[in-house]
Amino acid sequence: MVELEVIRGLLAPAETKILLLVLDGLGGLPVEPGGPTELEAAKTPNLDRLAAEGIVGLHQPVSPGITPGSGPGHIGLFGYDALRYQIGRGVLEALGVGFDLQGNDLAARGNFCTVDAGGKITDRRAGRIPTETARELCAELQEIELPGVEMFVEAVKEHRFLLVLRGENLTEGVSDTDPGHLGDPPLPVTAETAAAEATASLVRRFVEAARARLADHSPANMVLLRGFARRPDWPEFPQVFGLRSVAVAQYPMYRGVAKLVGMDAVEGGASLEELFKTLARVWPRYDFAFVHVKEPDKAGEDGDFGKKVAVIEEVDRLIPRLVDLRPDVILVTGDHSTPAALRSHSWHPVPFLLWAKTVRPDEVEGFGERWCLRGGAGLCRSEALMPLALAHAGRLAKFGA
Amino acid sequence: MVELEVIRGLLAPAETKILLLVLDGLGGLPVEPGGPTELEAAKTPNLDRLAAEGIVGLHQPVSPGITPGSGPGHIGLFGYDALRYQIGRGVLEALGVGFDLQGNDLAARGNFCTVDAGGKITDRRAGRIPTETARELCAELQEIELPGVEMFVEAVKEHRFLLVLRGENLTEGVSDTDPGHLGDPPLPVTAETAAAEATASLVRRFVEAARARLADHSPANMVLLRGFARRPDWPEFPQVFGLRSVAVAQYPMYRGVAKLVGMDAVEGGASLEELFKTLARVWPRYDFAFVHVKEPDKAGEDGDFGKKVAVIEEVDRLIPRLVDLRPDVILVTGDHSTPAALRSHSWHPVPFLLWAKTVRPDEVEGFGERWCLRGGAGLCRSEALMPLALAHAGRLAKFGA
Repeated sequence: MVELEVIRGLLAPAETKILLLVLDGLGGLPVEPGGPTELEAAKTPNLDRLAAEGIVGLHQPVSPGITPGSGPGHIGLFGYDALRYQIGRGVLEALGVGFDLQGNDLAARGNFCTVDAGGKITDRRAGRIPTETARELCAELQEIELPGVEMFVEAVKEHRFLLVLRGENLTEGVSDTDPGHLGDPPLPVTAETAAAEATASLVRRFVEAARARLADHSPANMVLLRGFARRPDWPEFPQVFGLRSVAVAQYPMYRGVAKLVGMDAVEGGASLEELFKTLARVWPRYDFAFVHVKEPDKAGEDGDFGKKVAVIEEVDRLIPRLVDLRPDVILVTGDHSTPAALRSHSWHPVPFLLWAKTVRPDEVEGFGERWCLRGGAGLCRSEALMPLALAHAGRLAKFGA
Repeated sequence: MVELEVIRGLLAPAETKILLLVLDGLGGLPVEPGGPTELEAAKTPNLDRLAAEGIVGLHQPVSPGITPGSGPGHIGLFGYDALRYQIGRGVLEALGVGFDLQGNDLAARGNFCTVDAGGKITDRRAGRIPTETARELCAELQEIELPGVEMFVEAVKEHRFLLVLRGENLTEGVSDTDPGHLGDPPLPVTAETAAAEATASLVRRFVEAARARLADHSPANMVLLRGFARRPDWPEFPQVFGLRSVAVAQYPMYRGVAKLVGMDAVEGGASLEELFKTLARVWPRYDFAFVHVKEPDKAGEDGDFGKKVAVIEEVDRLIPRLVDLRPDVILVTGDHSTPAALRSHSWHPVPFLLWAKTVRPDEVEGFGERWCLRGGAGLCRSEALMPLALAHAGRLAKFGA
């Protein structure tokens, strides 16, 4: 794939606008032999018209056979090679709860867990304590004082929490304390590099203080930490692609990933209706909007084929609102597949449609996996979509003379 | 993609011959919704027969969304990764005028420009002076003497000229003097590396001497230089692919790119008729011939759909001449798309047909973009075509045991 620096070097000024609509987990599977996928089963006259006028294809997130999480799925759609631009676990956790990660923060994913009298782990999830209980315990841990750094402990969901240290000279290279299995004590905090020694020492103090404060709070009488990571210093999307860019999303995770690459982000509101209204409101100020719809993924993870079909149809009914904004390029796709048949994310390529005046038409007249297989855009890597959208927006000059 | 060294390591001796016919800018777009592309509109019974007997597909130059110039377009067809093997601007300019660049030459693209009394640029193209005027000014600049190096100043077209310094120890890493905008003076010549200091110093002398000599020649009273580059030292095509290779082309640029990778090159003559006669004459001495037809690109850049259709049809009528040469492999394609609808090169994948006795037939019966979408060769990167041609010529041994 082309390097981001090459793209940046080819940018040509233009007044055009690009709209990226992500239906999370869009790709699906049939639930019976020969049957349709969720997208094929859905009646989507508006998406079908865009597909007929534009081109369709399938994009492969990460690499064939690899099932992406939400982070890599979106990073790929944003034009970054997800294998090269990896988001640390701690940073993803921060994005998920909408924590505004600063440049000198170090974030980790925490679990409340249960240890026995000998300090050995008997439950890595402390019986999945209620989120409310975790919130109280996080308030308790927030009292811990570490020399020279600020500290934030935020409940996520059930036994999960986010730990953020904020201060000068905090480094990555601090080892996980979660051994990943039962019967052993939490692993000691070690520095993986000499430079990480000071940071590891602070984390050690936190872990010991947490042990003391939680001793009487069985089953959540200890913590496990993993994925210590700083906010990455990557080329920023608005500069790489030359686009004033905004994310409109209901969930913090997706606004977070967008902010991580330098986009603005606005909260989309609770309903699809509000999401699209918010988009219409901010649209005049931007060249690029990423709109995120979570529902198809949720329905897929619930194994609810019918629900996934229904939410796709609901999105389809709102497509005319997008078209009314008169974007020059419309890209509709998912960040990965979430087939109801599998009740989880999957590695299957993801259908996409690209609408623009400059497409070379294919013979496809609808939007669905089988159509996409025959589409004019073929099977491509996820990170090819942004350069393609940019080209169709007339925003890329010739490479070489 | 496979490394060139891997290909070279697999070469097997054979008496077979490969013919690569490039219709420059072949790929197109419809001019009305649902209409045919130029290639689809053209009546091409001979190409259709080759497509029916062979396989077809689309190749993607450079990377999805990237519009290639002529250099990268051909470098890809010759089997080189165009992102890795980049031809410097100065070198391309030399190729374009048929300047025979030597190993110790340093070439730059020059513009005559206009500066005001304060030395600030008021026109980066000096009012696009006639080529004849530029020729006189180049003769004037040719008088400049630089210590220890030979110098060549050649008019290209209108305000454009080629500067070549020839001597020992000339290096790349000399900065452009063209600021790319009006209102500022030309940028000073600087060395981007310590090693480039001596070369930068020579260029500085040239620029100051040019300023003095051009002072009274308004509007062309100054020069701008950019893209200082030496002839690259790449693996040579005849060695990598084990083929005695020749280019037959009407334009210096295409013979130049072929020579850059070590092919022989002969001038094709003014008409298509002469081009194909020249090919027939040199064919017995070579294993590989690259035949370049410029006209489809020119018609595309002129926005002349009908003309592009007509020249494709004209080429088709001459195809039996190619077949009569009895090549073992025939590859017909373009270096990029030049849709008349866009009046420029574009990023769209390029149709190709590969005819050989060993193809696995597809169900395609004609040569055109829609046919190619369904073709047996799929959508591949441009640099995949040469290894494919070599395989079908029985010239590649097994990889691994």
